[in-house]
Amino acid sequence: MEFKQNHILGLYHLSAEEITLLLDTAREFKGINTRAVKKVPPLKGKTQINMFFENSTRTRTSFEIAGKRLSADTINFSSSTSSTTKGETLLDTARNIMAMHPDVIVIRHSVSGSPKLLADNIEASVINAGDGAHEHPSQALLDIFTIQEHIGKLAGVNVLIVGDVAHSRVVRSNIIGLHKLGANVRLCAPRTMMPRNFHIDNVPITSNFEEVLPWADVVIMLRIQMERQHGPALFPNTAEYSRIWGLNKRRQQMMRKDAVILHPGPVNRGLELSPEVADGERSLILQQVENGVAVRMSMLFHVLHVG
Amino acid sequence: MEFKQNHILGLYHLSAEEITLLLDTAREFKGINTRAVKKVPPLKGKTQINMFFENSTRTRTSFEIAGKRLSADTINFSSSTSSTTKGETLLDTARNIMAMHPDVIVIRHSVSGSPKLLADNIEASVINAGDGAHEHPSQALLDIFTIQEHIGKLAGVNVLIVGDVAHSRVVRSNIIGLHKLGANVRLCAPRTMMPRNFHIDNVPITSNFEEVLPWADVVIMLRIQMERQHGPALFPNTAEYSRIWGLNKRRQQMMRKDAVILHPGPVNRGLELSPEVADGERSLILQQVENGVAVRMSMLFHVLHVG
Amino acid sequence: MEFKQNHILGLYHLSAEEITLLLDTAREFKGINTRAVKKVPPLKGKTQINMFFENSTRTRTSFEIAGKRLSADTINFSSSTSSTTKGETLLDTARNIMAMHPDVIVIRHSVSGSPKLLADNIEASVINAGDGAHEHPSQALLDIFTIQEHIGKLAGVNVLIVGDVAHSRVVRSNIIGLHKLGANVRLCAPRTMMPRNFHIDNVPITSNFEEVLPWADVVIMLRIQMERQHGPALFPNTAEYSRIWGLNKRRQQMMRKDAVILHPGPVNRGLELSPEVADGERSLILQQVENGVAVRMSMLFHVLHVG
Repeated sequence: MEFKQNHILGLYHLSAEEITLLLDTAREFKGINTRAVKKVPPLKGKTQINMFFENSTRTRTSFEIAGKRLSADTINFSSSTSSTTKGETLLDTARNIMAMHPDVIVIRHSVSGSPKLLADNIEASVINAGDGAHEHPSQALLDIFTIQEHIGKLAGVNVLIVGDVAHSRVVRSNIIGLHKLGANVRLCAPRTMMPRNFHIDNVPITSNFEEVLPWADVVIMLRIQMERQHGPALFPNTAEYSRIWGLNKRRQQMMRKDAVILHPGPVNRGLELSPEVADGERSLILQQVENGVAVRMSMLFHVLHVG
Repeated sequence: MEFKQNHILGLYHLSAEEITLLLDTAREFKGINTRAVKKVPPLKGKTQINMFFENSTRTRTSFEIAGKRLSADTINFSSSTSSTTKGETLLDTARNIMAMHPDVIVIRHSVSGSPKLLADNIEASVINAGDGAHEHPSQALLDIFTIQEHIGKLAGVNVLIVGDVAHSRVVRSNIIGLHKLGANVRLCAPRTMMPRNFHIDNVPITSNFEEVLPWADVVIMLRIQMERQHGPALFPNTAEYSRIWGLNKRRQQMMRKDAVILHPGPVNRGLELSPEVADGERSLILQQVENGVAVRMSMLFHVLHVG
Repeated sequence: MEFKQNHILGLYHLSAEEITLLLDTAREFKGINTRAVKKVPPLKGKTQINMFFENSTRTRTSFEIAGKRLSADTINFSSSTSSTTKGETLLDTARNIMAMHPDVIVIRHSVSGSPKLLADNIEASVINAGDGAHEHPSQALLDIFTIQEHIGKLAGVNVLIVGDVAHSRVVRSNIIGLHKLGANVRLCAPRTMMPRNFHIDNVPITSNFEEVLPWADVVIMLRIQMERQHGPALFPNTAEYSRIWGLNKRRQQMMRKDAVILHPGPVNRGLELSPEVADGERSLILQQVENGVAVRMSMLFHVLHVG
């Protein structure tokens, strides 16, 4: 099987076979990260530019480590988009960067569709590291990788996604990817945190957290994006949110015996997850981060067709 | 021919032969930037420190890419100069950095003469990446490279430089370099944007844009440095500036049939250049950026005498 | 002799033999920094993350150069700690970073004990690059290295440390390290700049600067940490401080003929040191910076047991 995409803008654009290939390669790469010499040569002489228009030290670091372990030259390019019309600036900036002949651009941007805009206008490969509330494919791939690694399969697995769907970019990517690989997905969210017109076939939505909990093999708790909450508070206060929608020790006991918990990080401790649950034995949060490097190595490797 | 300089502080200090050598080497290096493996070994084990006391993500990125493609270890060192007397801080900082034995320091600083101050006091090679309104040799070299590449020669070529001469650091470098290689230069600027006492022999100055346009083989449109405009506005408003001094479709038709347009970037679209002209077929703006990496590779290569 | 520590949290935790080994290896590494090719392979394929929660461009640059010269992949991770409870954030951040399998973390943090917290909770090696007012082992090691290099020995050498002891992290590390290697240490500080309950055996304290000066073979002048001065001013003004506690030309003549001056940098010129003294022939300030790279190479090398 060959990976035919030059870009990874979202899981929407990838076939089940392509996603599987990315996961399979990530599995092979994972071993490199625990070796004494954590470096292999496939991206030697390739230029990777991390263009982060939003702060995300963790994701940027993960991509930077992934590139360096594959021997790429990595360059960080941070920029604020405040000065001028965003679309124009992005495209001008990108064309300028492109003229320096990078091989791959990893982009995070607050405007949905920015990575697509890039990919349509430049020659380098583009990897979406999160665009607005649209897609966040590397996060979804590492979630899916972690589920498959832990449970041993994806087909038929029940995945419950809980929380602030409206402001989440990973929830869309997760639904798309999990469906393509045969998992079942349900959403559980306060009505005020569901986006209007949100419509994905075959995704039952509930606002009864405790009722749906026993259904799940995997619970993905979304992060409350404090910085993206506008207008009147969605809840009277965070204690209220935590009481109704937080996953704590008591609710964890309603879960299936072998069910596990994921979270895209960083955790708002005491809000979405109580500290005991975040650090408990059912939490796969740190495995997610670990798998993130391997998954991103796989993404860089395949968009550049160096295999 | 041997390159005898240890520093590149400005084109003023270089002979025509040295500038030609830099351009010739840049031509050879340009090919590396489009290879599958964009990396050659001459700066292996050399330490390049990019000391940027003014923000310039593009120029810094270009120098960083140039260094990495030559296998240098590149380190970014950003600093604000606000806290203490600038000269003292710069020299103290530089001596400290120097004690770590870098091989080359690429410096951008708001104070004219800062690179010279460095070069006089430390042992590493110094490359000026822009100092105050003084010189910006890497930008001028990439302009000159682009003109020569496009037209095939420099001797006898007519170059018109238009706009905010008072706040431009590249205009001086360009005049000096173009003259040394036999090109003819004219300036066209609003009187309020000409520095007082600006006097360079053989540079006719006009404020009649449309009259001089047909003379030019190359038009270099300067960027309005919004952030450097002090005191009463130089023009009633930017629309007024654009109307009188902007290069738009109509004025482009007054140019010679094969004349081309350069701009140091980033373009203020609708101000110095209309969008159609900026993106039009006569614009060499992206070629300039592309050539910037090759020219900077050549500069790094020659000041370190690794050839 | 083998270096058995996986971390360097402070000189308190190292034996005299281990400190001596670090110094001996630094001496060997020092030569690499002046070669044409300043790069050796021992950390090839190792991932070094510089986590700086406080600004310190110089120290970060020194560690970054040290890692790169040993062929490590170096990644800079800066973060502010303002948003949440510090301890929690640090540990969460560190666990996340740890999940990416770095080999060594170099950490600077405003909270004393942060490096220890890391070392107790993660698998990577930890090097303390300064924690609160606790320890700053790399600075102390480079001070000690510089003294030994200049005088030829440490046993019996008289070291006088002068100034703002209360806010200094290096003074503790220096006292511990110098004592372990047989040097004699005295402190000289205004009473308001001595921490309460400061008690280290065998460190005589005086507030008569001129009386104690002739005793010293080495005078370490501490930096006034302007940014850490809280509450009522410790002195009427800086001129007053400089008059009573500054080392100037006149006081320098009270020193032994061959006595030398150290300072951790950056110098507040005219405050702790007069400019003539800072730049004079007795000042070893730039040698300290130079030795800093070699000492940090040695620290990275030994905590990773790659020898």
